[in-house]
Amino acid sequence: MVFCKMAPTSLASSFRQSVTSTALRSYVAEFISTFFYVFSVVGASMSSRKFLPGVVATTDPSSLLMAAIANAFALASAVYIAANISGGHVNPAVTFGMAVAGHVSVPTALFYWFAQMLASVMACIVLRATLVGQRVTSYAITEEMTGFGASVVEGVLTFALVYTVFAASDSRRGPYNAIGAVMIGLMAGANVLAAGPFSGGSVNPACAFGSAIVAGSFKNQAVYWVGPLIGAALAGIVHDNVVFPPENVDSFRGVPEAVVV
Amino acid sequence: MVFCKMAPTSLASSFRQSVTSTALRSYVAEFISTFFYVFSVVGASMSSRKFLPGVVATTDPSSLLMAAIANAFALASAVYIAANISGGHVNPAVTFGMAVAGHVSVPTALFYWFAQMLASVMACIVLRATLVGQRVTSYAITEEMTGFGASVVEGVLTFALVYTVFAASDSRRGPYNAIGAVMIGLMAGANVLAAGPFSGGSVNPACAFGSAIVAGSFKNQAVYWVGPLIGAALAGIVHDNVVFPPENVDSFRGVPEAVVV
Amino acid sequence: MVFCKMAPTSLASSFRQSVTSTALRSYVAEFISTFFYVFSVVGASMSSRKFLPGVVATTDPSSLLMAAIANAFALASAVYIAANISGGHVNPAVTFGMAVAGHVSVPTALFYWFAQMLASVMACIVLRATLVGQRVTSYAITEEMTGFGASVVEGVLTFALVYTVFAASDSRRGPYNAIGAVMIGLMAGANVLAAGPFSGGSVNPACAFGSAIVAGSFKNQAVYWVGPLIGAALAGIVHDNVVFPPENVDSFRGVPEAVVV
Amino acid sequence: MVFCKMAPTSLASSFRQSVTSTALRSYVAEFISTFFYVFSVVGASMSSRKFLPGVVATTDPSSLLMAAIANAFALASAVYIAANISGGHVNPAVTFGMAVAGHVSVPTALFYWFAQMLASVMACIVLRATLVGQRVTSYAITEEMTGFGASVVEGVLTFALVYTVFAASDSRRGPYNAIGAVMIGLMAGANVLAAGPFSGGSVNPACAFGSAIVAGSFKNQAVYWVGPLIGAALAGIVHDNVVFPPENVDSFRGVPEAVVV
Repeated sequence: MVFCKMAPTSLASSFRQSVTSTALRSYVAEFISTFFYVFSVVGASMSSRKFLPGVVATTDPSSLLMAAIANAFALASAVYIAANISGGHVNPAVTFGMAVAGHVSVPTALFYWFAQMLASVMACIVLRATLVGQRVTSYAITEEMTGFGASVVEGVLTFALVYTVFAASDSRRGPYNAIGAVMIGLMAGANVLAAGPFSGGSVNPACAFGSAIVAGSFKNQAVYWVGPLIGAALAGIVHDNVVFPPENVDSFRGVPEAVVV
Repeated sequence: MVFCKMAPTSLASSFRQSVTSTALRSYVAEFISTFFYVFSVVGASMSSRKFLPGVVATTDPSSLLMAAIANAFALASAVYIAANISGGHVNPAVTFGMAVAGHVSVPTALFYWFAQMLASVMACIVLRATLVGQRVTSYAITEEMTGFGASVVEGVLTFALVYTVFAASDSRRGPYNAIGAVMIGLMAGANVLAAGPFSGGSVNPACAFGSAIVAGSFKNQAVYWVGPLIGAALAGIVHDNVVFPPENVDSFRGVPEAVVV
Repeated sequence: MVFCKMAPTSLASSFRQSVTSTALRSYVAEFISTFFYVFSVVGASMSSRKFLPGVVATTDPSSLLMAAIANAFALASAVYIAANISGGHVNPAVTFGMAVAGHVSVPTALFYWFAQMLASVMACIVLRATLVGQRVTSYAITEEMTGFGASVVEGVLTFALVYTVFAASDSRRGPYNAIGAVMIGLMAGANVLAAGPFSGGSVNPACAFGSAIVAGSFKNQAVYWVGPLIGAALAGIVHDNVVFPPENVDSFRGVPEAVVV
Repeated sequence: MVFCKMAPTSLASSFRQSVTSTALRSYVAEFISTFFYVFSVVGASMSSRKFLPGVVATTDPSSLLMAAIANAFALASAVYIAANISGGHVNPAVTFGMAVAGHVSVPTALFYWFAQMLASVMACIVLRATLVGQRVTSYAITEEMTGFGASVVEGVLTFALVYTVFAASDSRRGPYNAIGAVMIGLMAGANVLAAGPFSGGSVNPACAFGSAIVAGSFKNQAVYWVGPLIGAALAGIVHDNVVFPPENVDSFRGVPEAVVV
């Protein structure tokens, strides 16, 4: 079990590492990136509703393309601007996978989660305050689907996304690392095209949480947490243990773990 | 003839090389990448049908754009995450071209094919089980076309794709290699825009096979195998013998061929 | 206050630096890049109006996608072709943020602004002269929005864009710099999808100014200046002071400041 | 005048250089890249007509998006696969600009042109033979436009494209070169969105020529030659003499000029 690395004593020291000035800047970076990611994705959903008043969001191919392109473009650039500061998670599921695989400590992961959640809620509040005439849209699953089925779909998509993040941030890939942020965005966009009209295609618990808070609707919220967190954990485990077992990895995926004397 | 390199003795040793732990990780990588590629592409086709009940899939420009973007984004990221492990084939036609050109051995190619086929079938099964209310869509050629014409189109497209893979993975290209996965995706997306409404625009026998198995329809399946395999073989031969004859290539296009004593 | 660096004496010398031949070539580069950016973005808006005569520009998802893709593709390539000459601002808000953060001198910034404005007006004149049958479209906010709300939206979007430019041009990012131009384009495209139908999604005062001049409508012009300039200044300050404080930055973001003896 | 470099004696030697085996491989590379570029772009135009029988090609936003994405994706990948062999011109206007700026010799340029034209005609023949039920579409200008206006538009767009090619292939840009092919594609895509419904948005004389030959319609063919060739020549001259005057450029933009003793 990976969490076993975190013994009580190391937890105290890892907490101390998670409140250094370097770590605090990481949280700000996660806040900024998640804010703009959620602003674009939820904003794009509100835009497409503006064109089609009275109907549910993604009901025609062009609206789904809008959602997919918004996801791809916004995630790629959001990951990019934070990549060398916080590792560019921009997603609590990614942070969870990184924690399960032992790349970030539990206290750091909790601060990341807090920054991501706060950013998502703030972005949705700004959207509600400024984009007059449109309600903030929350994610929803289609009628025919069960909550379990939707959670499986979201879990499969999150596996794909988190696996891509692990691959993109693996320093053994050399020059391939440079375009990692693009690839993370493209994978997210492809996933939205496949699952958007069925499970909602959130793949990001922070985004689902923030829009639900501001929209005031927590229906099916569990779908956007259970599947993604399980998928993220499995992706990290499969990447690090099966496909690409670490030898001497020194990639930068979170707050650098400084030596605490 | 390129296959002549594979003498009986070397075939035994190349089989031994194809069951090392490095090789097995390659097959897992091909499985994962092909699974997510097929999931996105076939899922996107099912999504666009959901919007347009009662009609055949790609019948309007927006649905075709969805198919092309799904192909481009999913293939680029799928190739990327496997690139430094298995070479990122994600397509039996690519593996066939690599085998014909002598870059992977026949036993290794067979294991790649098995992983790719299994992944495609599994992805379609998951799609059928989770995306309730939609049947898995299989590729189909348009009424006006003959099977021979469609096979030629698919062969031309596969030549383009496999040639791009050869170019992208040629280590003599130096810094250009870093964006190879993006280019492979873009070439695939452009091809779907050109041929999608005519021949189906599969360009990937595994994708056509998996969706046919789960949809239960093998009509025109030969179209998605004969043309692509011939196109792939020609692409490899033209690239390696005409346009860019090898001098001292050490690019990584498949399981590294370890020295067997 | 950052401007305090510019003492009267240094202002004289920084003016001399802003009229060297290297500096003049920077202004030409800004002119060319801004010209083609505005040509594509305003041209795409005129194209989508051609399809939908009698209605306001972005009123359906496909037209908004056109606007977003035009922004993303044109900005990425426009930034790219000027990147190693002028820093690739292509936007008065970016230049303003760079000046506030002390990366370019005030005289240089003014010359950049002049080149960008002139390029935008020229591009709109060429569009009006050649694209017969269509008026040049100027940016407009939607009925329901107040000017203040639209300005806040444009300011938030400009913060995102300028922050991305700062991150992309920070030399401490090493290999990540290579794809900076792509990321700046993607961030712009994502923003247009979110805000296009509400505030117009200009995010570029030069583009709003040029189209307003040629269209002869300055309604709400302040929206496209006040918010973006404030957002740009904040982005520069937050990036350089909070998230990524400089230690020994030697990135190239504008006219290189030659040693004046 | 740039052509003055080509003295009679050097013309004989430059002809000898243009028939070496390296040079011949360049022509094959240009043939392959142009073939697939034209196949995708003209094929995408035929696809969008299939959806909208009875109407002219680009009459709705989605069809124009298809054309723009096909151009961007196909040109980027076509340039990429030939980049380190022939320089990746894929366009007679680019070759013309390179010849005017003295980067390729006149005999070599003529061989490039021949390969590009032949490839375009062949691609259109294959499209006509295989995509049953659709005629090959040739470029056309919109009713309201004069031939002169359309030629100016095509010239402006070609300036943008060729200037981008010059910038992308300038070896002084270091790591930026790696993504040059992407940028060339994005610039082309942005241009099609701006001018497609007005002048046709060819920007590539070979593409206009091949489709005109097979469609049997040479109406307005001059539009796609006069403007683009002038624009290309100006772009090369402006880039190399005004914005980025050469000092010791050794970039690879065509057949390497071997030392002839």
